Amino acid sequence: MTELCPFNQALEKKAANYVSLSPLSFIKRAAAVYPDRAAVIYDDLSYSWRQTYGRCCQLASVLKSFDISKGDTVSVMLPNIPAMYEAHFGIPMVGAVLNAINTRLDSETIAFILNHSRTRLLLMDSEYADVVNAALLLVEGPAPIIINICDANYAAGKPIGDLEYEALLSQQCEDAEWELPVDEWDAISLGYTSGTTGNPKGVVSHHRGAYLNAMSNVLSWNLAANVIYLWTLPMFHCNGWCFPWTLAAIGGTNVCLRKVDSERIHQLLRQHRVSHYCGAPIVHSMIADAAATQTSSLEHKVAGLIAGAAPPASVLERMERLGIELTHVYGLTETYGPATVCVKQNDWAARPLHERIELNGRQGVSYPLQEEVIVLDP
Amino acid sequence: MTELCPFNQALEKKAANYVSLSPLSFIKRAAAVYPDRAAVIYDDLSYSWRQTYGRCCQLASVLKSFDISKGDTVSVMLPNIPAMYEAHFGIPMVGAVLNAINTRLDSETIAFILNHSRTRLLLMDSEYADVVNAALLLVEGPAPIIINICDANYAAGKPIGDLEYEALLSQQCEDAEWELPVDEWDAISLGYTSGTTGNPKGVVSHHRGAYLNAMSNVLSWNLAANVIYLWTLPMFHCNGWCFPWTLAAIGGTNVCLRKVDSERIHQLLRQHRVSHYCGAPIVHSMIADAAATQTSSLEHKVAGLIAGAAPPASVLERMERLGIELTHVYGLTETYGPATVCVKQNDWAARPLHERIELNGRQGVSYPLQEEVIVLDP
Repeated sequence: MTELCPFNQALEKKAANYVSLSPLSFIKRAAAVYPDRAAVIYDDLSYSWRQTYGRCCQLASVLKSFDISKGDTVSVMLPNIPAMYEAHFGIPMVGAVLNAINTRLDSETIAFILNHSRTRLLLMDSEYADVVNAALLLVEGPAPIIINICDANYAAGKPIGDLEYEALLSQQCEDAEWELPVDEWDAISLGYTSGTTGNPKGVVSHHRGAYLNAMSNVLSWNLAANVIYLWTLPMFHCNGWCFPWTLAAIGGTNVCLRKVDSERIHQLLRQHRVSHYCGAPIVHSMIADAAATQTSSLEHKVAGLIAGAAPPASVLERMERLGIELTHVYGLTETYGPATVCVKQNDWAARPLHERIELNGRQGVSYPLQEEVIVLDP
Repeated sequence: MTELCPFNQALEKKAANYVSLSPLSFIKRAAAVYPDRAAVIYDDLSYSWRQTYGRCCQLASVLKSFDISKGDTVSVMLPNIPAMYEAHFGIPMVGAVLNAINTRLDSETIAFILNHSRTRLLLMDSEYADVVNAALLLVEGPAPIIINICDANYAAGKPIGDLEYEALLSQQCEDAEWELPVDEWDAISLGYTSGTTGNPKGVVSHHRGAYLNAMSNVLSWNLAANVIYLWTLPMFHCNGWCFPWTLAAIGGTNVCLRKVDSERIHQLLRQHRVSHYCGAPIVHSMIADAAATQTSSLEHKVAGLIAGAAPPASVLERMERLGIELTHVYGLTETYGPATVCVKQNDWAARPLHERIELNGRQGVSYPLQEEVIVLDP
């Protein structure tokens, strides 16, 4: 009965005037709902959600002042510091595309990425001044505008040029206006693979996908506003599996970490009562190894996501004894982070350790908002 | 630099071939990830997620056998029993529109709704046979096909015609194929207001909106697979605020309830260790009143959503003593359920009871995935 489509006709107007799904909405709500809650902590610094949102709006205004707008690429070479978190919101707030560059790359690869992505502006921690200077020599066409983040707590390299992040931010208004993308399929970020087979390949992500995978993280891990998330996973790695946006969606707290250092991680786990963190197997192994040198064991429960190949039984076992519950996930840059997850079933808890370890080593089933996963038997 | 739109061009293809956001995806995943977990409990009956999904697929096949397809309206007159839950999936699985009729309406109003919605098929609990028979006399054009749900545990009225739900389901395959809507803006449900000012008005909901508000419930209430949800809120009321779909998204357990009866509610709260329920203020008052007659207090924590006007302090207070934590929400049929929520802040817990009661009485801030809420001062 095609005649009955008046219902759908009524909805056509809505579809034509829809509001885009974008993770940018999350931070606006976090600032409104949790204005005074800690959003981003880094060493002695602590920004509330109101402050973090204000800084993202300031960053957007800075970018506008350099004539950055829709479709422009803004690259970042940053460790997991507040500016990196802010880049995940401030850059797309002007419709620009965030391209987070792996900070371990060499100058040739960085140059390739700057060229290929047509980077117009680069936010850079002065730690990487040398490799960026070398890369800039290889850039074709006009050199990108460079904004330096100069970390007072860290003896870093010499800034490139005279634009400095904090100085620029302070000239802008904290409640500057910005707009959601008109089209939710617009690009929010670019991410380059390391290029093991030739030149790096770029993956483009859209606002809608980032929104949905940020939600998926919430569903998969049962996250709420009391989450204290430690940034062991590089945000340049597939936008930190969408967790920058997830944390804004729940109004949790981001604990920044410039460098993966197991002693510092143990310190932060205790100091901030960190509840969640993510990482590759090597990160978890480091944490397990370092636990032996700690004078006190963890007094609270911590949950970790471990990605990649099935984690060795010894890691799962040592982490469990330490009070860290690992969940195995698997994903790709193309899937915005985790695409499969080991969902623990009720009856597993009662099983002996070796069985639990085997079950927990599985990469499991599709991630919550993933439509379908097909595993081809090799 | 419009030249840089190759990123967005790359995404255009994705946008053209997207998979619709629909809550139907949730039940497919629940059946795959939690096949043996209890999905729907009703008195002595318990269906696992595999079974519930199978029954929804069977219902879809039954509807197909009656030539129900995209855009057709299927109405239901059902209490909160398994068939009502299944209707929320089986009906949209064939692209049809679920129209849940308030079971308290009189025959004239029901007839108006059947006519106005152009109902082609009606799923009806035989409890309502009398009022439906009277309504059918007022139906213009061809009478809808009637399928009776005859509840063995309940002495109900005489079925209308000879089509019976369980008999029809049993003739169909549990793994029948179905498809997501091609357009996520397609109608999933219709809901009529009670028509306090003239005839009832119909509200059309789309798959995308149902998906997003089902997610919003998860975020707002921090829900996970261990949720045991008691159906005190009628599912005919704005699709139970999208909670049928929310429960499938998390793989939780639905405890059905034919009739709001405070003694039975207290029994079920204990028997199934119910963790969550929703309701209008009157339902919470009834639960609080009945608590006085209970021989034992609740041994576990329960969370309730209370909608509508600010709940009286006495209700909030008595519920708190009983171990039930209420959260105030406000919404409309037009907003798929809750649109605002009282988000509790960290420092509230330490405040004296009367302050907490006042703070908890607020309807608060926008619901998690609600884009914007503007409150106009009267």
